[in-house]
Amino acid sequence: MNTVDEAVAANRTFAAGFDQGDAPRVPRKGLVVLTCFDARVHAEAFLGLEMGDAHVLRNAGGRATEDALRSLIISANILGTRTCMVVHHTGCGMLTITNEDVRSMLQSLTGTSADHIDFLPIDDLEESAREDARTIRANAFLPPDFSVTSWIYDVRTGRIRSVD
Amino acid sequence: MNTVDEAVAANRTFAAGFDQGDAPRVPRKGLVVLTCFDARVHAEAFLGLEMGDAHVLRNAGGRATEDALRSLIISANILGTRTCMVVHHTGCGMLTITNEDVRSMLQSLTGTSADHIDFLPIDDLEESAREDARTIRANAFLPPDFSVTSWIYDVRTGRIRSVD
Repeated sequence: MNTVDEAVAANRTFAAGFDQGDAPRVPRKGLVVLTCFDARVHAEAFLGLEMGDAHVLRNAGGRATEDALRSLIISANILGTRTCMVVHHTGCGMLTITNEDVRSMLQSLTGTSADHIDFLPIDDLEESAREDARTIRANAFLPPDFSVTSWIYDVRTGRIRSVD
Repeated sequence: MNTVDEAVAANRTFAAGFDQGDAPRVPRKGLVVLTCFDARVHAEAFLGLEMGDAHVLRNAGGRATEDALRSLIISANILGTRTCMVVHHTGCGMLTITNEDVRSMLQSLTGTSADHIDFLPIDDLEESAREDARTIRANAFLPPDFSVTSWIYDVRTGRIRSVD
């Protein structure tokens, strides 16, 4: 079976036992998590989140990009979240790249310049988590009582720790 | 307990039983999923993804924004994914808003104009899933053999269906 067929087969098994059809759209815990799209970062699992509990926003690195801010503004103002956890993680791929290397690879693979793209590599994990929390706190469209904290998830131990 | 304390307590329980410290950074299934940050959209659960299997990229609506493309370019070119599933879902909050309403709400809450932000509301769920797949396929920095398909997840039944 290919990857998509496997996913569909797994979904049929999931749906056969599905009993969460009444989970709420408005996040029960008023929580939104911003984290990385890494294959090991299963935020619902490591934060104990049930279906309906929290928004989980994920991109490469878990960065506070303009698009993440768009989503956070919707989350807070339309769907009532007031607690935001920014969770970066050990072993992140973004620690291993530079803009120069990625752009040069893309140029040689495609013949097209990618110099206009900032891939948002990370030098220091604690600093990136703090910086992204600061970016979110500074956004004019998030409520004054929107609380933002920074965390590191350790992919080897499964533990989160605060970096505030 | 407040929301963050609850999450930390749940994490301590999770970490105590954690046995996935060797899960790979390179997604085992070569899969990247683009979906919504909705609290009911637990993609790992409904697609049967184990830790280490797949990148999961999430924003408001599951839209193929510039930031999603940044992440997809990293996913495919640095971490080797070749299969992308775009999964939008029934009951999405983005079906209930318009740019005009959100901007007007933000203007009255904050006194600041949000007219420069496109919140990417959705009119037609199938069309948005198809459109986002087209945007991804058209990106010059994704490999020629990067396969993209469109899906709708039904939050009432737990089933996905193809909309290609």
